[in-house]
Amino acid sequence: MEKVIKYIEEHQQEYIELLKKFCSQPSVSAQNWGIQEMVQLVRDTLDGLGVNTERLETDGYPIIYGELGNNKKKTLTFYNHYDVQPPEPLEKWKTEPFTPTIIDGRIYARGVADNKGSFLSRVCAVDAYKKIYGELPVNIKFITEGEEEVGSVHLDEFRIKYPEKLATNGIVWEGGSKDINRGPLQITLGYKGLCYIELRCQGAKKDLHSMNAAVVINPAWRLIWALSTMKNEKDFITIDNFYDDVIRPTKEDMHYLDCFNYDEERIKSSVGINSFINNLEGTELKEKYLYQPTCNIAGFETGYTGEGAKTVLPSYAFCKMDLRLVEGQDAEETVDLIRKHLDKRGFTDIEVVMLSGKNPYRTDASSAIVKASLESAEEIYGMKPSIYRNAAGTTAMGTFCGPTGIPAVSFGIDHAESNIHAPNENIYLEDYINGIKMTALVINKFSIYE
Amino acid sequence: MEKVIKYIEEHQQEYIELLKKFCSQPSVSAQNWGIQEMVQLVRDTLDGLGVNTERLETDGYPIIYGELGNNKKKTLTFYNHYDVQPPEPLEKWKTEPFTPTIIDGRIYARGVADNKGSFLSRVCAVDAYKKIYGELPVNIKFITEGEEEVGSVHLDEFRIKYPEKLATNGIVWEGGSKDINRGPLQITLGYKGLCYIELRCQGAKKDLHSMNAAVVINPAWRLIWALSTMKNEKDFITIDNFYDDVIRPTKEDMHYLDCFNYDEERIKSSVGINSFINNLEGTELKEKYLYQPTCNIAGFETGYTGEGAKTVLPSYAFCKMDLRLVEGQDAEETVDLIRKHLDKRGFTDIEVVMLSGKNPYRTDASSAIVKASLESAEEIYGMKPSIYRNAAGTTAMGTFCGPTGIPAVSFGIDHAESNIHAPNENIYLEDYINGIKMTALVINKFSIYE
Repeated sequence: MEKVIKYIEEHQQEYIELLKKFCSQPSVSAQNWGIQEMVQLVRDTLDGLGVNTERLETDGYPIIYGELGNNKKKTLTFYNHYDVQPPEPLEKWKTEPFTPTIIDGRIYARGVADNKGSFLSRVCAVDAYKKIYGELPVNIKFITEGEEEVGSVHLDEFRIKYPEKLATNGIVWEGGSKDINRGPLQITLGYKGLCYIELRCQGAKKDLHSMNAAVVINPAWRLIWALSTMKNEKDFITIDNFYDDVIRPTKEDMHYLDCFNYDEERIKSSVGINSFINNLEGTELKEKYLYQPTCNIAGFETGYTGEGAKTVLPSYAFCKMDLRLVEGQDAEETVDLIRKHLDKRGFTDIEVVMLSGKNPYRTDASSAIVKASLESAEEIYGMKPSIYRNAAGTTAMGTFCGPTGIPAVSFGIDHAESNIHAPNENIYLEDYINGIKMTALVINKFSIYE
Repeated sequence: MEKVIKYIEEHQQEYIELLKKFCSQPSVSAQNWGIQEMVQLVRDTLDGLGVNTERLETDGYPIIYGELGNNKKKTLTFYNHYDVQPPEPLEKWKTEPFTPTIIDGRIYARGVADNKGSFLSRVCAVDAYKKIYGELPVNIKFITEGEEEVGSVHLDEFRIKYPEKLATNGIVWEGGSKDINRGPLQITLGYKGLCYIELRCQGAKKDLHSMNAAVVINPAWRLIWALSTMKNEKDFITIDNFYDDVIRPTKEDMHYLDCFNYDEERIKSSVGINSFINNLEGTELKEKYLYQPTCNIAGFETGYTGEGAKTVLPSYAFCKMDLRLVEGQDAEETVDLIRKHLDKRGFTDIEVVMLSGKNPYRTDASSAIVKASLESAEEIYGMKPSIYRNAAGTTAMGTFCGPTGIPAVSFGIDHAESNIHAPNENIYLEDYINGIKMTALVINKFSIYE
């Protein structure tokens, strides 16, 4: 593999130019901006590698599917997306969002981290491999969608419609970064699920003068009383039966926590807090962060929220909640539990509406793609990776890989201050080049391991 | 008094024209619109009655103070305001807000109910009285401020600065209407107080990705836990010591409830509810409505409240609350109780900010102005009035009359669908003319009673 690594180093300028080209092309799915041009660029680039691409239409934006080779024993799939977040607020950018600009070893552009840099690290690895060996030791599949930033709304359709395109021995998922100290590479072997709901309560048919509060029900109070039965001050979730299906962390899971870096002091200072919930620290903190479900209030609104004092009895109150689910839990079942919990306590007047549901997923840690990734990371970066047995966040990996159990890992080229979804999105050029090397090595090791 | 009543009937067109003139002149304190012109109109009108007026400057808009006669044994004061609410939303008006328009026996205009109609009912009563008898049986004082709609911010200053102008034997306060069936006249002998606060809680220094919810405190949850200790599902206020100073209703107070009309079915249908809090009805319902304090959530906001699912851990949450206080309670002491209650439960991270405080007030029910008003109402309207021993709402009457204990009553010319503070504000012309007669009779009876 030394030759491949050397080739990547010698051609890094070419690979950086390709990244700049991709980042110069807007592809904002939420604003239908530049999508068709981006699709063409993705196809042209993959075609240039010798990949056999297809444009799979959906009701939204197409999925670009591609295959390279079909005569090898094993297949490796790269999942990525070609769409990016809107660049707004524009006034907060130091550079033009779609004019990739290199400053002090970093390249700034919308989408450079999420996830054009990651996508091209896969593309360039394949390119370098081919340039040296003429062919790859595994079959390669590319699944590149254009709706990740708007909820991957047609990815399930793809999974169901094209079982033969789905078939693979392992997936390298998008995303992944270095930790807050730009220390070891983070490798993610799964994600929490997400159950996003709205609780809604209607009182009188219109807002009333608050003198009526003595006799007319206030839907905000109804929500507050209901919510106060769902989690207590110890941050323990008190929804009936909520933890019943949670699979407790195994010894092996706890061992992974030792391989996971979490710089408490730096995070507290960055976030502006004095302590974590329940004053947790060390392993207990990491265990709660990664292995415990959450019950978060993402938004709450009722009545008058402007300046000063308006004496109003609100007619309507709603609350947005996101519950991150861990292994064993199910998004739809969670909604059922909440409905039953509320009904049992007389809160039948509170409507529960599910806005989004994704199940948690953990890949088989003994699979070839996991072993290949962990070893490659140590070789390329010169230190052991920081392992998330599952990440605290959520991606479509769960719904995509869960039903078939395809092993999947996520690693990438961004860092803790990449400003993903925010102004001044950036990556280090060094991380990009290392990401290409990393991917090349993973391909090699994956082809060897059982 | 028959002659005075007859004079009023014969000159009703003239009095209606005066009302139209007043309502044609905008006087929006919140928008500093037309105030100086209105001040001049008020002074000219009072001067025309022979009232000796003074323009008392404040840091805001002037108070027009006037005296008529000073040689009588007793003095009666009329409190009113010349400012009105903004007319917005304009598109909801069926007529021009400052073009008074008569449709089906009602006159529509901003301020016609609140409170130019009431003010002129006092003015025209004095006029008719003078026209018949040449002079009045009591000294009359007019206190007419221009900041009622923005919180009567300089009324306390007036009270403290001009004790000789304050001196009187009784006040007829602004406001007052017929009930929802346009049945008996409502006469109000006091008001609840108001303690308006904001609870504020700061978490992280900026909104975070909600994956952090497992370890970083959510200020919305802090507020919800705190609020859930302040009132229970039976609508009982559980702030420590909150009820300690409440003076329980006396037998006499309970008797007044029999004289207070509350059409439950009509109110439920108008408001769009199936039942009142705790399924209360009858005397229990009326008792809670008028004699119990409230703890209302007027507004609550945190995090993301737009469309769809945004997974955010909010950094800040706040809640607006208004607590209506009953006899014995004090607005500032209530804030202290809340602070102590929260501290005792560890909610030292929640800030309590008082935005407004008005104490409750009940006038001496045996005073001359009360007796005169109750009797006059029965004579003019042909049925016993509906008596609020104290109203469920709040006016400045408490802070204004409380410190000196001046007896005060409130009755007026609006009705339950007058749309006060809303588009299409209106009164019945019949109610306006009756209001003039009522005021004239009150002046007469007040001069007789001890």
